[in-house]
Amino acid sequence: MRYAVLGTGQVGRTLGGKLVALGHEVTLGSRTQDNPVALEWAASTGGGAGTFTEAASSAEVVVVAVAGRVALTALEAAGADNLAGKVVVDVSNPLAFEDGEARLSPVGSDSVGEQLQRAFPQARVVKSLNTVNCEVMVDPARVPGDHQVFVCGEDADAKARVTEMLGEFGWPADRVIDLGGIQAARSVEMWLPLWLNLMRHFGHADFNLELRTPR
Amino acid sequence: MRYAVLGTGQVGRTLGGKLVALGHEVTLGSRTQDNPVALEWAASTGGGAGTFTEAASSAEVVVVAVAGRVALTALEAAGADNLAGKVVVDVSNPLAFEDGEARLSPVGSDSVGEQLQRAFPQARVVKSLNTVNCEVMVDPARVPGDHQVFVCGEDADAKARVTEMLGEFGWPADRVIDLGGIQAARSVEMWLPLWLNLMRHFGHADFNLELRTPR
Repeated sequence: MRYAVLGTGQVGRTLGGKLVALGHEVTLGSRTQDNPVALEWAASTGGGAGTFTEAASSAEVVVVAVAGRVALTALEAAGADNLAGKVVVDVSNPLAFEDGEARLSPVGSDSVGEQLQRAFPQARVVKSLNTVNCEVMVDPARVPGDHQVFVCGEDADAKARVTEMLGEFGWPADRVIDLGGIQAARSVEMWLPLWLNLMRHFGHADFNLELRTPR
Repeated sequence: MRYAVLGTGQVGRTLGGKLVALGHEVTLGSRTQDNPVALEWAASTGGGAGTFTEAASSAEVVVVAVAGRVALTALEAAGADNLAGKVVVDVSNPLAFEDGEARLSPVGSDSVGEQLQRAFPQARVVKSLNTVNCEVMVDPARVPGDHQVFVCGEDADAKARVTEMLGEFGWPADRVIDLGGIQAARSVEMWLPLWLNLMRHFGHADFNLELRTPR
């Protein structure tokens, strides 16, 4: 598969590196063509580097791995025509530090997932993976137990394709919980404040939630 | 111990009933003295019924089991003098239906737990148990596994006393995660939207999260 991974931070590089290792063709997208971090990533992994537009135009699947608050801007740079009909996997969280604390925005009555789907109605947006650290995203065996990740989105076929990608990462399908339409992105983004407190509590990010139920 | 349980809904009746069964002296508090639901609960359990003020005045521990959006009003009715120095366990969630959906308010930059602590600085507010259904609150064995609950609050002794109460309910101390000060109430209240989506997904409320970590 041809993937665009938008964002050259740790999340983008980790997801991109895993996709390359799995045999996919990956372009790491950034605002500029000569982003040194992207070029170094490309040289060391065998992936490609380019602008958001270049990355998205050639891709079949677009992964949004920029910070949640600039996700819309990154997709606008990628261009609606380069997203139309494609699976857009949003793994972002709209966190920013305000008054010395991490806050979500939007929160409660909107989400990044919904913002992207509204702005690009031809894209098939799936929210996923934002509930775990990027190391866990691509290597769930770092954490013991049958812990889970979520998908939500309006397009069942897109969710199935993301579930396949998650399977390649090591998440069996029975550990991928489908929460329904893209509005559920609100609920998984609102997990982040608890995740941050738990990271402080545990002193590391190698954790995840396993939902337990008797039935 | 002498408990006031404020709120005659399912959460209040369930918590109050469990506390009576454990041998505690419990008054179920409501706005009026002749609340028929409270009187029926008292007659069937052996607990007492009274106004918010009556319940709080005689109690050592006050449990806030009203809806989160009226928690402040209920504690105002109980009276600051009847709360001063006491452990106040807030199990509420500020959910209300808006535009046909459950929304939190406050959300993100405030929480019910913080509202109560600010309004009643002499009370020792501990947020806990709001992350599970009331049946699971008082009977964690309904759900398999070492799933957890949280406490947060400013007063270490108050958190220790709530942890003892949780132990009586069936939560061993190593399954009670201390998230720190009362500000962490934001993060556990923001768990609710995901909890609601999961209840829809599972088709029942007998579930909880078990945090998994290798260390």
